[in-house]
Amino acid sequence: MSKQPESSLQAEVDRLRLQLQSFQVNHGSEPITIANYLLARLEQLKVTKMFGVPGDFNLGFLDFVEDHPTIEWVGNCNELNAAYAADGYARVKEHSIGVVLTTFGVGELSAINGVAGAFSEMVPVLHLVGVPSTTQQKTKPMLHHTLGDGRYDAYIKAASNFAIAQAHISVKDAAAAEIDRLLTECITRCRPVYLTLPTDMVFEKISSERLKIPLSRLTPPNDPDTEAFVLDEIIKLIDQAADDVVIIADACAVRHDVRVELNELILKTGYPVYSAPMGKTAVSENYERYGGIYVGSISHPEVKEKVESAKLILSVGALKSDFNTGNYTYSMSPSRTIEFHSDHTKVQYAGFPGIGMKELLPMLTARLSEAKHKNPVPKFSAVVPKTADGVISQAWLWPTMGKFFKPKDVIVAETGTSSFGILDVPLPQDSIFVSQILWGSIGWTVGSTLGAAFAARDLGLNRTILFIGDGSLQLTVQELSVMLKHGLKPIIFVLNNSGYTIERFLHGKERKYNDISNWNWTGLLGVLGDAEGTLSQSYTVKTQAELEALLATPSFADAGKMQLVEIIMPKHDAPRALMQQAELSGKTNAYVSIA
Amino acid sequence: MSKQPESSLQAEVDRLRLQLQSFQVNHGSEPITIANYLLARLEQLKVTKMFGVPGDFNLGFLDFVEDHPTIEWVGNCNELNAAYAADGYARVKEHSIGVVLTTFGVGELSAINGVAGAFSEMVPVLHLVGVPSTTQQKTKPMLHHTLGDGRYDAYIKAASNFAIAQAHISVKDAAAAEIDRLLTECITRCRPVYLTLPTDMVFEKISSERLKIPLSRLTPPNDPDTEAFVLDEIIKLIDQAADDVVIIADACAVRHDVRVELNELILKTGYPVYSAPMGKTAVSENYERYGGIYVGSISHPEVKEKVESAKLILSVGALKSDFNTGNYTYSMSPSRTIEFHSDHTKVQYAGFPGIGMKELLPMLTARLSEAKHKNPVPKFSAVVPKTADGVISQAWLWPTMGKFFKPKDVIVAETGTSSFGILDVPLPQDSIFVSQILWGSIGWTVGSTLGAAFAARDLGLNRTILFIGDGSLQLTVQELSVMLKHGLKPIIFVLNNSGYTIERFLHGKERKYNDISNWNWTGLLGVLGDAEGTLSQSYTVKTQAELEALLATPSFADAGKMQLVEIIMPKHDAPRALMQQAELSGKTNAYVSIA
Repeated sequence: MSKQPESSLQAEVDRLRLQLQSFQVNHGSEPITIANYLLARLEQLKVTKMFGVPGDFNLGFLDFVEDHPTIEWVGNCNELNAAYAADGYARVKEHSIGVVLTTFGVGELSAINGVAGAFSEMVPVLHLVGVPSTTQQKTKPMLHHTLGDGRYDAYIKAASNFAIAQAHISVKDAAAAEIDRLLTECITRCRPVYLTLPTDMVFEKISSERLKIPLSRLTPPNDPDTEAFVLDEIIKLIDQAADDVVIIADACAVRHDVRVELNELILKTGYPVYSAPMGKTAVSENYERYGGIYVGSISHPEVKEKVESAKLILSVGALKSDFNTGNYTYSMSPSRTIEFHSDHTKVQYAGFPGIGMKELLPMLTARLSEAKHKNPVPKFSAVVPKTADGVISQAWLWPTMGKFFKPKDVIVAETGTSSFGILDVPLPQDSIFVSQILWGSIGWTVGSTLGAAFAARDLGLNRTILFIGDGSLQLTVQELSVMLKHGLKPIIFVLNNSGYTIERFLHGKERKYNDISNWNWTGLLGVLGDAEGTLSQSYTVKTQAELEALLATPSFADAGKMQLVEIIMPKHDAPRALMQQAELSGKTNAYVSIA
Repeated sequence: MSKQPESSLQAEVDRLRLQLQSFQVNHGSEPITIANYLLARLEQLKVTKMFGVPGDFNLGFLDFVEDHPTIEWVGNCNELNAAYAADGYARVKEHSIGVVLTTFGVGELSAINGVAGAFSEMVPVLHLVGVPSTTQQKTKPMLHHTLGDGRYDAYIKAASNFAIAQAHISVKDAAAAEIDRLLTECITRCRPVYLTLPTDMVFEKISSERLKIPLSRLTPPNDPDTEAFVLDEIIKLIDQAADDVVIIADACAVRHDVRVELNELILKTGYPVYSAPMGKTAVSENYERYGGIYVGSISHPEVKEKVESAKLILSVGALKSDFNTGNYTYSMSPSRTIEFHSDHTKVQYAGFPGIGMKELLPMLTARLSEAKHKNPVPKFSAVVPKTADGVISQAWLWPTMGKFFKPKDVIVAETGTSSFGILDVPLPQDSIFVSQILWGSIGWTVGSTLGAAFAARDLGLNRTILFIGDGSLQLTVQELSVMLKHGLKPIIFVLNNSGYTIERFLHGKERKYNDISNWNWTGLLGVLGDAEGTLSQSYTVKTQAELEALLATPSFADAGKMQLVEIIMPKHDAPRALMQQAELSGKTNAYVSIA
């Protein structure tokens, strides 16, 4: 029978203590406002930034935020961008969460797409909503921000589709327990949660006793008997595969916090490792036995062959969305696959609910040894193609950028040519790749870059670099202003290829609806808060030579101020991976070309 | 027994014909794609513009829109602004509807706050969503834009809270009837409806037979016996009041299309007329017996006295939200009030469901005659205060703008100092006031101005003029770009008073969270599409003299190009009405000032 790890026991102890707390009379702790109780919990979770927009019903709580010594209020330009920022912050700041504060109705509904995206991609975000007082919620007057028909629960109902848990602070004695329950759900299941704060509740005083017991992100331990069985089955299959085993790192390796465990497994065994797009940088891309991105039939042929011919695949944290799998063209039979997930394991065709990888992986690693025979791994590199015309094509851009990146850079790629183009480029040691490959809401990256840059600053990471298309930037441009305001210094590459390029490749290549208005991209920062021109620098590059020269300039590369680079690119050009994916998607969409 | 009006009978005939259509075999009509059937219905409803953003799953339908001879695609910068634009278009373009097209998940959720606002304020908007094919909806693959857990119905569920009807085209033979049902609900009940279009359904062919029968916006006729009873009761009360009767025009007089009927009643009787804020311009504000805005205890004292002392109040289309009633400070007893609504009537304390004002008002007017004694009406005017310092204060600005407005102007006022400040200013004959006093989502007016300006152009109205605070403009600024792109020529007044002023007055006057980043407002149009400086003109005015000079300049007033005027105003200044309203709201919010 397996021994429950110590950390897991400690977490269990803490959980039980918190449960008991609810029943015990509290003596001797300083009373605290509900607002400050919540902020204290967020501080314990290493939250340093709160995103959002002020609005009636949240102003009282905002006083507490503004006065808080360690949590800083980031006033966003709008609520959707604020939710995007909370998402980006949470992705980069491991073991923390993103927090977005909005107001009843008008604010929260503006944010809902951002929260849904975090739900979809398993990002722990707390959506806090300032709502009318508990009295008003009973009498239901026709306040501004209401629907006029008395339905005060409409927004909660809408939000419930995109949160794994909700809490409504209506009774002060239950507040602490409810806040703790909600935050625990958030950090253990890594999905958004939703909390309403009535105006009259934020300053009610409660006991601070529970704060002494930290919240735990550990999930309940695996059932020992099942776990032992599963381990034996896996070991059998690995033995049978006689070292012809390949590991694929995917989304949840990052999202569910098993990068350490995964890396131990990889280093101990020496098995070849590949990444699905959503797992890019789960494993260091310059690791010698890392072979690059596996994405079904649109993988590089060498990678496809190596992965699909392996006798056994260990898939860690799979999230098999269309863009993450080359439109579901994984051709490996389940009979050759073991899937590790946060809350279940799949061994060939057998499913084992409740057996999570956080615990299972180290136990597996302990049973394995270094492979005797090490299968060769294709070298993952990106060669800059030589062209005569000096045009910045997609095929030229991405390998070129690959040479520019440095360790600990945070690299954000918008849905579109960027998120596909960057797949083929090895990112440096300890860099973090940020993209939204499953949810795919264009414009997301402006807000998420803001959040990611704050987190990068907290963690002492290197530069934050964003690649975004001109079409996408138009949706959410104003958040550039907030980056300036807070002295962040991202490098923003704007791919100016005159339109929504990913849409062109999905359908409607020559259609006017895929055109956009051409903005003065390099004038944006000047109007959005850098009137003096001292906080930022903007550039346009039209040729390979111009971009190369810029990338080689130390003051540019050092990112000492916020920078925006407009890259002029051909209209009908896309990365190889995007063209192939779009063709596959287009077939399943059943679009018909009309004459 | 009352006679059913002819138009109502005709509408009933059409409804019955449509019902029968569903059962009859269709002969001889040209088959038509579902997409074009829908577009044909929209054309019948006088829709000339469709707002939205392209996205996977709606591109196939977009081909039909782009190819349509009379409906023009307006590519918005983001979906929230697109929904705002559909709302603004519908408000100005009487007897039409607003249409916004988004994509599955990411698009529709971005728009949902805009649709909820239209729901709240009774604006007929059709939200069209391009969704995966009917096959994909059955097999539920993990497509981009999905939640990753197989819930394909999550967005429909969320949307159901903000639509009076939904339809999902899944079977082609039901498509026409479903589209007709949905659009009929939209135009009769004046609230948003929601329609999903699977990619494979848009080009399925169906009969076009039903198109021969127009959709009707008339609601079912009032029950004749009840109506007769109600009329007698009302006549009795009016007789008892001996001409001391006052009329209040409110939101639904506009939203539910009774301006003609209301004006006939007013002219025939000569009773004094006032408006609630949301009813401003329901009645012409230069009508000699119109006394201005009634808003409970924050009305002008003369108005308050006249309204509250009347023996009988005829309230037409009341929508008693907090900001529309001075925080519910109407002091007239129901015993002196008759309320006319779209779907019920209230006579003193008695309620009469199903008795709608569209039919009732003309029947009432027919029974009334001109008042023998005409109570005096306070003159509704706005005097420009004389000040020595030349500062553009709130108190000075609004009366000054009052002199600038012309007949048939469309005047849009953002939630904040604008929507409160403009109340005290008489607007000219046939002008249209656009504001969002119940829902109050800041930033709404940029999108709604776009829609309103298109509608104004369709109808040959005069200028479209927007007043928006600097804080609000930051939420939705990009839509200025779309105005430029389409050659619209609104005049945008940006009130630069360094922050979210309405919030300052609600709470947190000196708080940093009510500050914003200062943008280069007059540089915006140049970067958002007018690089050459030929399409627009921007100005900054700091003093009364500068603004007066600008307003007096013919080329400015003629609005021959798009114009933006930054008005520098004091930080802690607000219109009288806002200060009073905020104080009342602040008390009910139960905010507590913390030291």
